[in-house]
Amino acid sequence: VPTVPLRKVTIVAEALLEDRLLRDLRDLGSRGFTITETRGEGSRGTRAADFEGPNVRIETIVSPTVADAIVAHVAEHYFEHYAVIAWVNDVEVVRGEKYA
Amino acid sequence: VPTVPLRKVTIVAEALLEDRLLRDLRDLGSRGFTITETRGEGSRGTRAADFEGPNVRIETIVSPTVADAIVAHVAEHYFEHYAVIAWVNDVEVVRGEKYA
Amino acid sequence: VPTVPLRKVTIVAEALLEDRLLRDLRDLGSRGFTITETRGEGSRGTRAADFEGPNVRIETIVSPTVADAIVAHVAEHYFEHYAVIAWVNDVEVVRGEKYA
Repeated sequence: VPTVPLRKVTIVAEALLEDRLLRDLRDLGSRGFTITETRGEGSRGTRAADFEGPNVRIETIVSPTVADAIVAHVAEHYFEHYAVIAWVNDVEVVRGEKYA
Repeated sequence: VPTVPLRKVTIVAEALLEDRLLRDLRDLGSRGFTITETRGEGSRGTRAADFEGPNVRIETIVSPTVADAIVAHVAEHYFEHYAVIAWVNDVEVVRGEKYA
Repeated sequence: VPTVPLRKVTIVAEALLEDRLLRDLRDLGSRGFTITETRGEGSRGTRAADFEGPNVRIETIVSPTVADAIVAHVAEHYFEHYAVIAWVNDVEVVRGEKYA
């Protein structure tokens, strides 16, 4: 079974940002999400530095192009005012040919 | 401390598939799992396309051979009828020498 | 938007170890954590072999140097007596320049 090399973008943010982030991700081309409740603790290297509390972790598997668009969007629209962290890593996806 | 290069397989599926998936993974050689409650949203590139609701995320760290067997099994037995996504990525495991 | 290549360390352990692990990680240079409740099942290749039950998953994004220190510390102080698994993988972090 061949897998398809794609990119997984993970965003961890205050829980109240969930709906807005999902809307943005859909607009940027993401077709599906896995959402997990999580907790954050400590500084995240953002200006909205120290925080603790309920966070949401949003993961989406996308093409490199969509991943780049998401990264640029999150950096531009969220990092200054919200406690958000985001990272990207390579994944090999089963039946990945239908992803954006 | 040397780490051991292994493969992490992540499967996100409807929560009701958990027991069956864990049984299958054990049969294929997986020795341990981390299981997280999660939510899915949106199409996943599967025939059982759109869904929302309680999902389970199963992660297992295994050898490349076992990872390939899991990927083939999930593709063959789950993708047609269930909303399942699965991906693989490289991990470096502390004291990884005892993994399957 | 350039991303910064860093290392993500993931530790899955008995829930009761959370406070101690976070204290150790801070001492080793980690500045922030994402913490998720999870469940473990099966042997993990540790001496404290078989276990089931509430686990905590701690993730921290750090420099390669800090990642190595965490891995060494966990291997030395936890693996013999606790059901702990730990792995490292590469991530590309948005605005990663402020991480330890």
